[in-house]
Amino acid sequence: MKTLGIIGGIGPISTIKYYKQIIEEFKNSRFDEYYPHILIESLNMEEVIEQIDYENFTQVEKILLKSIRNLESAGAEIIVIASSTCHIVIDDLIKKSPLPIINILDCVYDKVVRNNYRKVLLIGNSFTLTHNIYQERLGRYKIKSIIPDSMDIQEIQEIIYPNLENGIVLPDKKEKILKIIKKTIKEERDIDCLIITSTELSLIIDEEEIPIPVIDSANVHINKIVNEILKK
Amino acid sequence: MKTLGIIGGIGPISTIKYYKQIIEEFKNSRFDEYYPHILIESLNMEEVIEQIDYENFTQVEKILLKSIRNLESAGAEIIVIASSTCHIVIDDLIKKSPLPIINILDCVYDKVVRNNYRKVLLIGNSFTLTHNIYQERLGRYKIKSIIPDSMDIQEIQEIIYPNLENGIVLPDKKEKILKIIKKTIKEERDIDCLIITSTELSLIIDEEEIPIPVIDSANVHINKIVNEILKK
Repeated sequence: MKTLGIIGGIGPISTIKYYKQIIEEFKNSRFDEYYPHILIESLNMEEVIEQIDYENFTQVEKILLKSIRNLESAGAEIIVIASSTCHIVIDDLIKKSPLPIINILDCVYDKVVRNNYRKVLLIGNSFTLTHNIYQERLGRYKIKSIIPDSMDIQEIQEIIYPNLENGIVLPDKKEKILKIIKKTIKEERDIDCLIITSTELSLIIDEEEIPIPVIDSANVHINKIVNEILKK
Repeated sequence: MKTLGIIGGIGPISTIKYYKQIIEEFKNSRFDEYYPHILIESLNMEEVIEQIDYENFTQVEKILLKSIRNLESAGAEIIVIASSTCHIVIDDLIKKSPLPIINILDCVYDKVVRNNYRKVLLIGNSFTLTHNIYQERLGRYKIKSIIPDSMDIQEIQEIIYPNLENGIVLPDKKEKILKIIKKTIKEERDIDCLIITSTELSLIIDEEEIPIPVIDSANVHINKIVNEILKK
């Protein structure tokens, strides 16, 4: 059984989802009652977000690399970053990391390819959507990514921060997001699935209300993580 | 700002409460938006509980001491254990720990003394209640501790494991716990307050329904933790 190191705190809601769900899936996948050994480093979100906003990616990489080394010192054997946004530096980070990292982009990519989807709708915070984080990875297999228009992205961003980030779900915002998704699906033809890239948005999106299949990036990530920990 | 190391996983619900609430209280106590730097080591609950059940306290101490050292290697400066039960070994652990530990028993004791309470009702899992963990600490100031009778303790234990431990609150069990508390308050005269020692029980106990003041041990612990991190 491998010890998992989670880099979290960006934001805390996502970290809690990873922690809770890994334990639940772990218990469901075994006959005995066993809990995984997990180490979490929860960073100061404001510090990381500031560096990301200023596009100081070298600094972001430094912060994450320091976290990986801290977690390694504490006994971690595999690393995951509980934030899509931080995956902006994942390729370089994987090269420099002393420990293997389970990449959320690979997990989503695998799921899309397995389902033979060709055109996906991405929804998430404005940084992740406008910096081609998922688009670039999916594009390697000629999968086309659609994002909402810039005004809608701005609107979603304001729904995530500060409300959703603090776990507050407002009913009118729930309607608003659903409207944006449905509008984009209607305008663009042949969208195969919706990919939720910011964990906070899963709080406000009911999969039953979406007319196409939904991939929650954190869920496919967590699934892969549990399989990896259980490997001998 | 000090880096906090949390030993958690026993159980996971308590760990999540500590994590969430420390971040919330931290943000409320500052003008700027700042998140604390937290390290969590989440242990395999089954392994620890087994050692506790067999009363292998040397082994429990070893597991906790190893965790403290792991967290220290990762950069932690203060330690907390997010479990009342594990405080059975706290006196020895404090002597051997390379880092200061914020002791939940001291936090509860301080609160009781500040309020000048003389006779308290303890409610929690059967191990904590029957091993005098809180009683001994409170007794140093001649504070009398009352616990429910053994059949009621057994009943509470079965409500915590496995339901509450997994976050499942059943309405009839909520009624049951309330009845046990009210019955004990009625039988014993002059009880000043109720102390909830197992975090899971706060999920099922509405403080408004309790006719006397309630001290949630995790809450006073978290309060003290936030004050300590903020100290220069």
